[in-house]
Amino acid sequence: MIDWNEQFAAATQNMRRNTVREFLKYAGRAGMISFGGGLPAAELFPMDEFQNASEAVLRKYGSRALQYGETEGVPELRENVAQRHGVGIENVLITSGAQQALDLLGRVLIDRGDVVAVENPTYLALLSSWRVHEPEFTAVEPEDIGGDKGALKRAELFYLVPNFQNPKGTTLTLETREKVAEFASTEEMAVIEDDPYGALRYEREALPSIFELAGKCGGPVVSVGTFSKILAPGLRVGWVIANKALIEKLVQAKQSADLHTSTLNQYLACELAMSGLLTTHVPKLCLEYGRRRAAMLAALEEFMPGEVTWSRPAGGMFLLVRMPEVISGAEVAREALEENVLVVPGDDFHIVGGRNTLRLNFSNCAPDSIRRGIQTLGKIVGRFLNEESKYRVSFSSV
Amino acid sequence: MIDWNEQFAAATQNMRRNTVREFLKYAGRAGMISFGGGLPAAELFPMDEFQNASEAVLRKYGSRALQYGETEGVPELRENVAQRHGVGIENVLITSGAQQALDLLGRVLIDRGDVVAVENPTYLALLSSWRVHEPEFTAVEPEDIGGDKGALKRAELFYLVPNFQNPKGTTLTLETREKVAEFASTEEMAVIEDDPYGALRYEREALPSIFELAGKCGGPVVSVGTFSKILAPGLRVGWVIANKALIEKLVQAKQSADLHTSTLNQYLACELAMSGLLTTHVPKLCLEYGRRRAAMLAALEEFMPGEVTWSRPAGGMFLLVRMPEVISGAEVAREALEENVLVVPGDDFHIVGGRNTLRLNFSNCAPDSIRRGIQTLGKIVGRFLNEESKYRVSFSSV
Repeated sequence: MIDWNEQFAAATQNMRRNTVREFLKYAGRAGMISFGGGLPAAELFPMDEFQNASEAVLRKYGSRALQYGETEGVPELRENVAQRHGVGIENVLITSGAQQALDLLGRVLIDRGDVVAVENPTYLALLSSWRVHEPEFTAVEPEDIGGDKGALKRAELFYLVPNFQNPKGTTLTLETREKVAEFASTEEMAVIEDDPYGALRYEREALPSIFELAGKCGGPVVSVGTFSKILAPGLRVGWVIANKALIEKLVQAKQSADLHTSTLNQYLACELAMSGLLTTHVPKLCLEYGRRRAAMLAALEEFMPGEVTWSRPAGGMFLLVRMPEVISGAEVAREALEENVLVVPGDDFHIVGGRNTLRLNFSNCAPDSIRRGIQTLGKIVGRFLNEESKYRVSFSSV
Repeated sequence: MIDWNEQFAAATQNMRRNTVREFLKYAGRAGMISFGGGLPAAELFPMDEFQNASEAVLRKYGSRALQYGETEGVPELRENVAQRHGVGIENVLITSGAQQALDLLGRVLIDRGDVVAVENPTYLALLSSWRVHEPEFTAVEPEDIGGDKGALKRAELFYLVPNFQNPKGTTLTLETREKVAEFASTEEMAVIEDDPYGALRYEREALPSIFELAGKCGGPVVSVGTFSKILAPGLRVGWVIANKALIEKLVQAKQSADLHTSTLNQYLACELAMSGLLTTHVPKLCLEYGRRRAAMLAALEEFMPGEVTWSRPAGGMFLLVRMPEVISGAEVAREALEENVLVVPGDDFHIVGGRNTLRLNFSNCAPDSIRRGIQTLGKIVGRFLNEESKYRVSFSSV
């Protein structure tokens, strides 16, 4: 009998199911209030528009919508993405969600031992995807780029999410963006700017991307985007915008990875984008998600013990809660699960520290559920703090 | 200015645009008779059924069809695939086409230097996908497995396409399948059985898969399949059936690669498969493709010079033409392109030899176009042979 565990390649040691995933499998449990996944609100999906667009795509494009397509993507969608970003069609590769864009970039850009700078914390599935190439991850705060550039000086690559970062919810200032653009240009460091949430802004004005500030496709910045958060993640349609030489390499990698992204879904995304739906749908999302964010911030204020802090995102879907050092996010999350509230520990998003953090998603629950969920969570954190202080007292009285 | 070419990882040296791809870009040229790609006949796509299924899926599954889904695949489709193959749902992973299944298997199973046995020639995009892991490919004829097992003894992995292989069109006999199953079980060698064309059989009876013969998920064989050839490739929905330990690893790899396959397309495939469409649609495909195969075989008989041979597939979409050693398939293909006939050189499908071969697809053209295309091709090959014999004459007369 073959023992499959004996067959696995060495690289699989760098693959692991992350803890977050273990929590997320409870998301569908009856009565669960989920602050867990990064799920858009399902009740806001434009179902009728999808019905109409499916019908239209099969009618307009006919069998082309079901046939094999070019690895680069269907020309109509590449053109649409290119126009919206002011680049040429040759600079656009359509990918199977932004996750595939990141995965292909890892395959094409990372050698073992390369120094890869990331914010700390950063997007968890970026870390898992790139870890198989065995880079040396280093934590860099984009704001500090004007000061000590030590870590960045060594970095071949800098990955960042400029708007409403996952899991922090933070947004880079214009000044920081300019500094990153300038540093990358001077040092010839490649920057991957991943912007899944940029359109979901609930206050203040949008800022220019680092990609624009650094000269678009002529510069050192690669731009990654997706329809997942503004249309529907089930489509799995994203894109990379980059210098033509890089696109060419990514196309080779993608050809091996999955030949091309679903033609049908590319035409669907294109049909919906061209119909002008986004100009009415995105503001609707912003209005509702903005309400949910407000509900969560208010509930945190009302129910969280004074020792706990959290970020105040201007958009996106997440915020990060930071508890006193002694409290474990994973333990709080496990306890919360017992009381039908799903949160994920922030630990795995960090390359240093983060044990005492929780990531909270606010896009997937109605405001009243958010309030109840945070009330429960506040009580649980309170209990942990009490336990802790009792322990401290009894310890000091010994 | 950053020079992107300087940024590429070493592994990208093993990525290349293959020659076939360079030819395929001409497939859409007006008036072109294409024997090039592996394209199903677009005019046979069940367009009305797709219209109805799209409508039904969005109505029945609602927002679930547009939301993020489990990496393993939507349970309904996994169950459907599991039932059709007599395995458990835990043995099924849904992938973004069979190409992704192969890519993930490469990531999870191949270490640099591993000996990987393949038929010669074999599926081109398998070679490109696995080449980045730097295995040592070795050519093995499955029929010879009873004799000298030298090469196979060293192999960790054996990839084969048992039915109507791409590019050869050949099918393994029951005896060969049994020998491979037994050898793999004894030697604990893993076998990847890729079967995209199995349902497209135009003569004789179907044979049991090596996967079945070797004890299904308890044995050393992994089964890879797809809806691309029996439904529509534009969906990009395929699957792997394997031992649970391997599925678990593949899930980890897939999570990094693209999170999951399009939920919408998985439900579409499921809806169409459960509607019983395949039981009426596949026989329709077989009838028409069988006609096209017959047309191509008859035309080859009629128009090809006597020195040329070809395979006679019992199903599938391809056959392989072998010309005298002195003739270059690439040169013939280039010349054919000038006369609006698209064929691909067989070279890149081989790990040894094959320079004098052409792969011909017969599923994508109507019988009368096939006859005209082969007539043109026959003339071109005839010219090459004449040139060659003149050269030989003049050379021998020197």
